[in-house]
Amino acid sequence: MINTVSYRFDNDKKILFLKIIDQRKLPERLDYIVTADLQQIYDAIKTLAVRGAPAIGIAAALGLTAASSNYKDMPSAKFVEKLKKDADFLDSSRPTAVNLSWALGRCLRKVADSAKMSYSTEKLWDVLFKEAQAIRDEDIKMCRKIGENGAVLFDRLGMNVLTHCNAGSLATGGCGTALAPVYVATEQGKHPEVFADETRPLLQGARLTSWELSEEQIPVTVICDGAAATVLKSKKIDLVIVGADRIAANGDVANKIGTYGLAVCAKYHKIPFYVAAPYSTFDLTLSSGEKIKIEERSADELRSFSGRDIIPDKAMVFNPAFDVTPYSLITGIITEKGIFSPPF
Amino acid sequence: MINTVSYRFDNDKKILFLKIIDQRKLPERLDYIVTADLQQIYDAIKTLAVRGAPAIGIAAALGLTAASSNYKDMPSAKFVEKLKKDADFLDSSRPTAVNLSWALGRCLRKVADSAKMSYSTEKLWDVLFKEAQAIRDEDIKMCRKIGENGAVLFDRLGMNVLTHCNAGSLATGGCGTALAPVYVATEQGKHPEVFADETRPLLQGARLTSWELSEEQIPVTVICDGAAATVLKSKKIDLVIVGADRIAANGDVANKIGTYGLAVCAKYHKIPFYVAAPYSTFDLTLSSGEKIKIEERSADELRSFSGRDIIPDKAMVFNPAFDVTPYSLITGIITEKGIFSPPF
Repeated sequence: MINTVSYRFDNDKKILFLKIIDQRKLPERLDYIVTADLQQIYDAIKTLAVRGAPAIGIAAALGLTAASSNYKDMPSAKFVEKLKKDADFLDSSRPTAVNLSWALGRCLRKVADSAKMSYSTEKLWDVLFKEAQAIRDEDIKMCRKIGENGAVLFDRLGMNVLTHCNAGSLATGGCGTALAPVYVATEQGKHPEVFADETRPLLQGARLTSWELSEEQIPVTVICDGAAATVLKSKKIDLVIVGADRIAANGDVANKIGTYGLAVCAKYHKIPFYVAAPYSTFDLTLSSGEKIKIEERSADELRSFSGRDIIPDKAMVFNPAFDVTPYSLITGIITEKGIFSPPF
Repeated sequence: MINTVSYRFDNDKKILFLKIIDQRKLPERLDYIVTADLQQIYDAIKTLAVRGAPAIGIAAALGLTAASSNYKDMPSAKFVEKLKKDADFLDSSRPTAVNLSWALGRCLRKVADSAKMSYSTEKLWDVLFKEAQAIRDEDIKMCRKIGENGAVLFDRLGMNVLTHCNAGSLATGGCGTALAPVYVATEQGKHPEVFADETRPLLQGARLTSWELSEEQIPVTVICDGAAATVLKSKKIDLVIVGADRIAANGDVANKIGTYGLAVCAKYHKIPFYVAAPYSTFDLTLSSGEKIKIEERSADELRSFSGRDIIPDKAMVFNPAFDVTPYSLITGIITEKGIFSPPF
């Protein structure tokens, strides 16, 4: 399985480096970003070098650990103070992914608890590093569990899956969320086949989902987003599985733009529509999806491609990064704790 | 209004040249193709330098006239025979657009009728040229009439239109089909605003619809196809209008891939969904949409963009050019003869 977010420790300099696949370069080149620089880590999250809610959480936790390895010589009170400031900065890189603030908050709380016990800065940093590693290890196990819970569906519903965006190993520390059932089922000797929406504007389905699945020899067919309804109608799709960036208490799901329309089309064709996500994606402070803040991203994502202008300057652009799928369109939410069916 | 398909007559050489906007270059450059070469005309249609059902019909008729101006010195029987062969060749360039075979058939029938009266080749060619011009002139009038019939809807439903692909002046000889009501309403002092799906894979909405509307100072906002459902939900869209490549006798409509999913989403949001097309787009030989042959286009349209590979070689691609929207999802079909509501 691909190792999307990891780290490298420089024993001489005692500096930790965050190591991530630069997903902006895929599928043309497999490049890595190796850095302990806070601004570079912020940029990597903001510009989608690392993306996918769980991977962002891990990258933020390991990134905060990496950046703070530069100032382990500070007095512990100052260290904690600076850590808080750096975490706030990283937290501001993407507004919708709940895992970002969740992972950073968890790291800060752990360090704050230890700081009460008058730990040295060096020891506080070790606590931080262990917590970041734990977040990653737990994610790997969680993905696996999501995969096991979801793989059962293939026996009951069939092997043809349609997915949107990328919620695979490139989006997590482990084998993904939406794609986890596909990986686990394949290991179990089943033969799932995947149709992948290319997922405009950033083409995560075309570039990432098709790359990681074909690297594992799993059959994958890319379609443009507009072809999904036709594929649902004519290609014997047995179920749809997508990821989630945030889930409200009532089961409404924020995910990549295009998910909502896909859910509407799945409902129309009476095809089961599943969301796969870690339990931590639930944000119980939000009663419904209407409360979810939707990130509007730069118009340039639509205006140009590979340096070619595709929209005239005089025309306007509307580019929401996510949409909200109401729970009424969702058959079930596959988590590490089981499959839940709304309403909750 | 933009002159998408026209001609130029070379008085010295007595050769007619087809003159079309090369839409593959838009919106970056406004280039024209001027040619009397059959293969070039075939390629222009096949590679979408000219596209949109009515524009293809006109380009084929004028293109056949242009190509045959090279062999006006043949005996009339041979001329008719070669004309038939050339028309068959042009007809094979795009399988779904009914206007292509309709326009070519109409030209051939007119020439065949005249041939019975022992016309000279020169005179047969004049008949052909007049017929091609008539097809273009009728199209201009037809677009206008579609616009007038459709513009009435804005008063009743509202001014915010969502459209897919390009069924505007770039797709016809006149002011378009789906966009004709927008142009006519604007002339009438109304202020329609357009949301345009970018329309993958070839981005006709981003490149063409937004270009021609903004050239006429009509407000247009481009969205990615996946954002349409969200825009239907949140942006107060009053109606959807799309074009059609072929309409079956029962009212099922073949149009650019993505239309079907958009129609499903419009139905879910209870937003009126209109198709605008010349009456000639009805193919009464087809009882339903299931009989419509759907062109599957090259995977390269999805695999690469501006020379950049966006899908790994190991992944498969499915790229249907059109989909079929069943009449049950269509509020009305706006034609030059009025607005018809299925079932028929």
